Amino acid sequence: MTMNNDVQVSVLGLGAMGSALAGALVKAGYPTTVWNRTSGKADDLVAQGATSAATSAATAGDAVRSGHVVIACLLDHVSVHEVLDPLTAELAGRTLINVTTTTPEQSREMAAWAAGVGVAYLDGGIMAVPDMIGRPGASVLYSGSAEVFHEHKPLLELWGMSTYFGDDPGLASLYDLALLAGMYVMFAGFLHGAAMVAPAGVTAGEFATMAAPWLTAMTGAFEGFAAVVDGGDYTVEGQQSLEFSSLDHLVTATAEQGISTEVVAVVQKLIQRQIDAGHGREGFPRIIESIRQPA
Amino acid sequence: MTMNNDVQVSVLGLGAMGSALAGALVKAGYPTTVWNRTSGKADDLVAQGATSAATSAATAGDAVRSGHVVIACLLDHVSVHEVLDPLTAELAGRTLINVTTTTPEQSREMAAWAAGVGVAYLDGGIMAVPDMIGRPGASVLYSGSAEVFHEHKPLLELWGMSTYFGDDPGLASLYDLALLAGMYVMFAGFLHGAAMVAPAGVTAGEFATMAAPWLTAMTGAFEGFAAVVDGGDYTVEGQQSLEFSSLDHLVTATAEQGISTEVVAVVQKLIQRQIDAGHGREGFPRIIESIRQPA
Repeated sequence: MTMNNDVQVSVLGLGAMGSALAGALVKAGYPTTVWNRTSGKADDLVAQGATSAATSAATAGDAVRSGHVVIACLLDHVSVHEVLDPLTAELAGRTLINVTTTTPEQSREMAAWAAGVGVAYLDGGIMAVPDMIGRPGASVLYSGSAEVFHEHKPLLELWGMSTYFGDDPGLASLYDLALLAGMYVMFAGFLHGAAMVAPAGVTAGEFATMAAPWLTAMTGAFEGFAAVVDGGDYTVEGQQSLEFSSLDHLVTATAEQGISTEVVAVVQKLIQRQIDAGHGREGFPRIIESIRQPA
Repeated sequence: MTMNNDVQVSVLGLGAMGSALAGALVKAGYPTTVWNRTSGKADDLVAQGATSAATSAATAGDAVRSGHVVIACLLDHVSVHEVLDPLTAELAGRTLINVTTTTPEQSREMAAWAAGVGVAYLDGGIMAVPDMIGRPGASVLYSGSAEVFHEHKPLLELWGMSTYFGDDPGLASLYDLALLAGMYVMFAGFLHGAAMVAPAGVTAGEFATMAAPWLTAMTGAFEGFAAVVDGGDYTVEGQQSLEFSSLDHLVTATAEQGISTEVVAVVQKLIQRQIDAGHGREGFPRIIESIRQPA
């Protein structure tokens, strides 16, 4: 058993993600106590690491008492309160790192709750699927207590690249959700494209071979769009205009394939609102103004 | 003047893209005749290449007569007919490569028209902005006459990576539009994310720094989604379920930021229709079924 760290850690929640986080800690030799609402998963993890530092706790209270640092990776914000509300006495003086997926407002509420019961609080948003934890490409975003982030950075780095965004405990969740929004919307765009070419006998696999490098190349446009948005002047030279970005062909061709136009129609509407407001000759990134001001 | 090729080429249309295409031909030493509805642009191009192979034509008819291969890069499908319909006699026996942005149906109509007047026809879809022409990353998709594609591949490769999709002249446009759909939808997702984080004082530039590598990494999921879609079984193990992909947090957090939810709500609706139809435990790529069957 390698014990390369004295920090006692407890992990509450052993879904696919919680198990991956706990597994990385155990592998690195952190004395790790795991707990799950149903006990089978904890036993599995301990069995896997029979020669390691993993211990299974019978109750959440036992787990909290065993850990200087308590990691919460539960279903949602309500679950975090259900598990931790009865344990304020056990938690006092400890550190809580909450990587449960929550909204920014929920993260702020949890930070306030933690402050009220004498718990140092760091909020995390995981930008990875469980299989990626501890591998290149995994990234975890943090906000809340700077002290907790810096003191426990060696532990946090076991999971992936760790970035701290500031004191506002809602910032990590906000960034997390904003990046997830980009991901889900991109996935919908990819599947829309695959649905468009399918009636012509093109497989989704063939389309993926084209779409992955194409969209990767097109992420190169973000920086330029951002410069225009941050500059606040959508008339700067060298941009593709909103008029030129008309999605009429795209929507027509989509309808001709007999599939739903809704995924591309939403972008067409963002463009059209700016054209209708007299900004047709300005640059494409101006559609952010359609998003900023709900219709 | 380098004349490394005997093929006489004419380029009709000197917008930003037509000029870039003609410029690449001139640079490679192709004897190139250029024409534009308004003459200033053609003169500019010829002036730039005073020691080169560029010639400006006064009329589209003059340009067509000067080229064995005629490249059309015009505003839209209607413009192509306006320019070429009076020139059937001049065009007969020549080759037409039409890279004007059109729908698949329009490409098929143009191919039929070309066949009717004795013109070999290749349809192209350009996956690049004008600045990228002739540089790494530019890609042009073709369909229609295989003979034209193979005979003129050295010329086509001057613009970017050239891929031939088959006889159906609509295929290149279809692929083009499907990839553009993915791009515009991804751009909307990026700008949605930037609008979400803005109220917390995060600049679009800071967000772009995170979003570009994140979305690039996430294109890695396309291949797996495609395998599931092509396999037709959305219950295969190891997938993120539709229930788990609920975008409720995302839509709530978006609304809390005071911005429009429409970009993420469209994805939420695709997911919800599959959950409502009893497929909540199946994999996320099943949302393609929501796109295939318009609501």
